[in-house]
Amino acid sequence: MSVQAISWTPSGAVRVLDQRALPEAQIERDLESAEAVADAIRHLEVRGAPLIGIAAAMGLVAGTRELRGGAREAFLARLARLVDVLSAARPTAVNLRWALDRMARVATSTPGDGSAIWERLHAEATAIWEEDRAMCRRIGEHGLPLVPDGANVLTHCNTGALATGGIGTALAPIYLAHEQGRKVHVYVDETRPVLQGARLTAWELMHAGVPCTLIPDGAAGVLMRQAKVDVVLVGVDRICANGDFANKIGTYGLAVLARHHGVPFYAAGPWSSVDATLADGDGVDATLADGDAIPIEQRPADEVTTLAGRPIAPPGVAALNYAFDVTPARYVTAYLTDRGLVQPPFGA
Amino acid sequence: MSVQAISWTPSGAVRVLDQRALPEAQIERDLESAEAVADAIRHLEVRGAPLIGIAAAMGLVAGTRELRGGAREAFLARLARLVDVLSAARPTAVNLRWALDRMARVATSTPGDGSAIWERLHAEATAIWEEDRAMCRRIGEHGLPLVPDGANVLTHCNTGALATGGIGTALAPIYLAHEQGRKVHVYVDETRPVLQGARLTAWELMHAGVPCTLIPDGAAGVLMRQAKVDVVLVGVDRICANGDFANKIGTYGLAVLARHHGVPFYAAGPWSSVDATLADGDGVDATLADGDAIPIEQRPADEVTTLAGRPIAPPGVAALNYAFDVTPARYVTAYLTDRGLVQPPFGA
Repeated sequence: MSVQAISWTPSGAVRVLDQRALPEAQIERDLESAEAVADAIRHLEVRGAPLIGIAAAMGLVAGTRELRGGAREAFLARLARLVDVLSAARPTAVNLRWALDRMARVATSTPGDGSAIWERLHAEATAIWEEDRAMCRRIGEHGLPLVPDGANVLTHCNTGALATGGIGTALAPIYLAHEQGRKVHVYVDETRPVLQGARLTAWELMHAGVPCTLIPDGAAGVLMRQAKVDVVLVGVDRICANGDFANKIGTYGLAVLARHHGVPFYAAGPWSSVDATLADGDGVDATLADGDAIPIEQRPADEVTTLAGRPIAPPGVAALNYAFDVTPARYVTAYLTDRGLVQPPFGA
Repeated sequence: MSVQAISWTPSGAVRVLDQRALPEAQIERDLESAEAVADAIRHLEVRGAPLIGIAAAMGLVAGTRELRGGAREAFLARLARLVDVLSAARPTAVNLRWALDRMARVATSTPGDGSAIWERLHAEATAIWEEDRAMCRRIGEHGLPLVPDGANVLTHCNTGALATGGIGTALAPIYLAHEQGRKVHVYVDETRPVLQGARLTAWELMHAGVPCTLIPDGAAGVLMRQAKVDVVLVGVDRICANGDFANKIGTYGLAVLARHHGVPFYAAGPWSSVDATLADGDGVDATLADGDAIPIEQRPADEVTTLAGRPIAPPGVAALNYAFDVTPARYVTAYLTDRGLVQPPFGA
């Protein structure tokens, strides 16, 4: 059984599993306000593009509970401010913006006072979550042929139950194959600097009983050369219309290695990761972190230079901490989405 | 000025900078016996293929001090045992075996009693160190054309002053270029799992005033794609006759990325890294860690699963910790050695 990363508390707050604390401790946090949700997203207590979208939607609900008795205008004005707060928490994932836009649209199109709008928002956030759970399952079903009995899968970052409201995106076919009794083994890139692979993916795979082996990111090449990897399955944070996609730093290097060794390389994510307003990711080459194509988040250097508060590099060292890189579409065998295995171009 | 990684103590023990303690603390340790040197090598307090060779040679001297008054046979018998102890400390680097063989040959060919042999060994170990220092300088001089003014170099692991008796191997041309006033900037792969790049290379480059930027290993691909890397300079642990070479895990992936992006890729090391008894590294593909071609060391899993004693992965997770990988010769632009920029095949 895969874990449950998010839920409602009885009082309508957002209960999350603190992903910064894993794997040492399994701590649930009740986030009572939209600001608390934004902080949790910013500090990676809640991460994974789909889960961020769900959490943001639920955060709007939690953050407007006290306005349920209020007038329509006050409610909508407050909601708009909270949308801005949540939207600013992480810049790269398109799901965050997508979920917030959807919630905002629903709010303005719902007649009545704060109470009516709030009830509608609660239902909509729950729907986003339920749809995500169903989306994961569909991705898993469409991806089952990629994970035959005996398959060795290599994955990067965390794209599983901890990244979504359900059984994950890139990990979804692995969970379903395992459920069906297929022997599947997963090589888990530890995924520096934040170690989502070591801390989260290995943890949730072990929790579900799926055999896995943790590797340093630099070991992927030799494993592919030894023909120990049958398929690479990674997630996506944002897909351009032409198929170029942003994902965790290191994904692009894996894509090049996979191409070089003839290993199929699949990018898995919900259809909502498609940002058809971006023709391609090319602008990113010249303007990484400049924000005019896919905005690539630069995170604090201390994620690279320290670990668990202990320095692992000399004081004052310059460090580059791009959270994501962009992989051109030509490296991708196919895109595994809830609409099936698809090829670009992607429309709206 | 680059640092000094090793020296004699006044009493003939081996003084080393404890590389496990860097960059947090700069601790010198006096190793009084060959066993202590072997332990220091095994635990990576002393690492870097050339430095290991020097340390082992000096360790034989330190470890036979008390036999100086002894008979020839007793001295040589003890020496042979210490050669075995030191030889077993790390399996992959050829320099270790090379230095020990050289010391053993010198010992048996030196007439006289323990005292005479010991004096000769002391001189030989010092010569190995001095030759290494000169070797580094020659590598640096031969490599200067690879590091023009304004160059951005990407390097992996530690191949500098901390890995040798002098200014390093792959870092040597960088130090010389910097000395000559050229603007050089180094991207330093942090080099998981042991973080030699973050802990050692960044430290010694900063110590010498060479501008550098620390990056997670997974960021090398996107930097090459952005054309921010002019040249890749890595070290070698062992070079086969055909040019296939073993080096720190992750080197092979970098070589593939460099080839893919048209970035020149140089493997730098002393000529003593050539192991002409190995035709090629191909056996390694089928037998990694089996020891019949280049023996690839598998180090303890906890180097991957913990950091500074703190777990970064779930308890009981399986982890793969190959210390090295093998890069086929076809990925290498040229080999930077103390004999110049050379191409295989390499004779004895």
